[in-house]
Amino acid sequence: MFFSFDGIDGVGKSTQIDLLCQWLTESGHQVTQCRDPGSTPLGERIREVLLATDDAVAIHRRSEMLLYMAARAQLVEEVIRPALERGEVVVSDRFLLANVVYQGHAGQLPVADVKTVGSVTIDGITPDAVFVLDLPVEEADKRMNRERDRMELQGDAFRRRLREGYLAEAATDPAVHVISAAEPIEKVHAVIRAIATKLMA
Amino acid sequence: MFFSFDGIDGVGKSTQIDLLCQWLTESGHQVTQCRDPGSTPLGERIREVLLATDDAVAIHRRSEMLLYMAARAQLVEEVIRPALERGEVVVSDRFLLANVVYQGHAGQLPVADVKTVGSVTIDGITPDAVFVLDLPVEEADKRMNRERDRMELQGDAFRRRLREGYLAEAATDPAVHVISAAEPIEKVHAVIRAIATKLMA
Repeated sequence: MFFSFDGIDGVGKSTQIDLLCQWLTESGHQVTQCRDPGSTPLGERIREVLLATDDAVAIHRRSEMLLYMAARAQLVEEVIRPALERGEVVVSDRFLLANVVYQGHAGQLPVADVKTVGSVTIDGITPDAVFVLDLPVEEADKRMNRERDRMELQGDAFRRRLREGYLAEAATDPAVHVISAAEPIEKVHAVIRAIATKLMA
Repeated sequence: MFFSFDGIDGVGKSTQIDLLCQWLTESGHQVTQCRDPGSTPLGERIREVLLATDDAVAIHRRSEMLLYMAARAQLVEEVIRPALERGEVVVSDRFLLANVVYQGHAGQLPVADVKTVGSVTIDGITPDAVFVLDLPVEEADKRMNRERDRMELQGDAFRRRLREGYLAEAATDPAVHVISAAEPIEKVHAVIRAIATKLMA
């Protein structure tokens, strides 16, 4: 079973990931937690390149998409596929949907191109459920209390397109669940747990 | 006009690139010379990751392919497309064909997958001619007089598949010209110059 979390920054992904992993562990599952990009030596190196805020290294939108894909291919082969083969539950902070939305819908690369490259990249490893935590951009902004990285510094119009992209993808993919993050933490967790329980039955 | 050079290491690409660029410049062309991966700040950073020989950072074949693509997308947008738009002649040390052959034919990723990702990556920028310098693997080995990088350390069976891959691609793509590098330097250069002259007429 493979779950991923997505959404714009500031919606409380980390909190919900921790709660889900804790619940899964207490329910007797072996859990592998990871983040995309990251969670492998190569992925962490790529993450540094992608999120650095210095302007010395220009990154075209298409290169950016391909760097995320390179990190993801490594994550799939080094972490996710082996964990699934061992029968573990994998919980990832972001996965392919983030590329579709950030570089596609919001970044204005053709969405079909991102999905085509994505399909080669993940080689059959797809989340059983993607939990998209949803908040209006202004609400998410208020909750951000740390310095923004390069992806987070792209302005409000970009972030509004992100939200619209998530909603558009959820409308066509039944594995993508949009969950209001405006509710109290425990209530959001209960919704996620209910979906996970049904899938694992 | 866009030319690229390819082939296994040790076949004399650098020498022939220099001779072609010199001839083009003397003929009155503005020439932009580049190498793939590389020739942009992002590309050079990716090149370091790809060619490092330390084993601490595992790189799956699919990640490797995607990293080359990320470097190439940046090279296309930052260097090659602008140069072509200025009316210059671009000469690149390797381009997409290297991925098709190294990660596809020799590295055993599906060749169709590499080409699909490649098509998104280059976004319509294709060499007018690819000069593949060809030598038997044993001959190329004899000419290598420097330390090998990670890609060059993959053994003889791999390098024989490389050569077969180049020949297979040339058989189906009229823009790919296989040129025997066993001939004297000036003779090889004359063959390349003849093809370039015809294309630029």
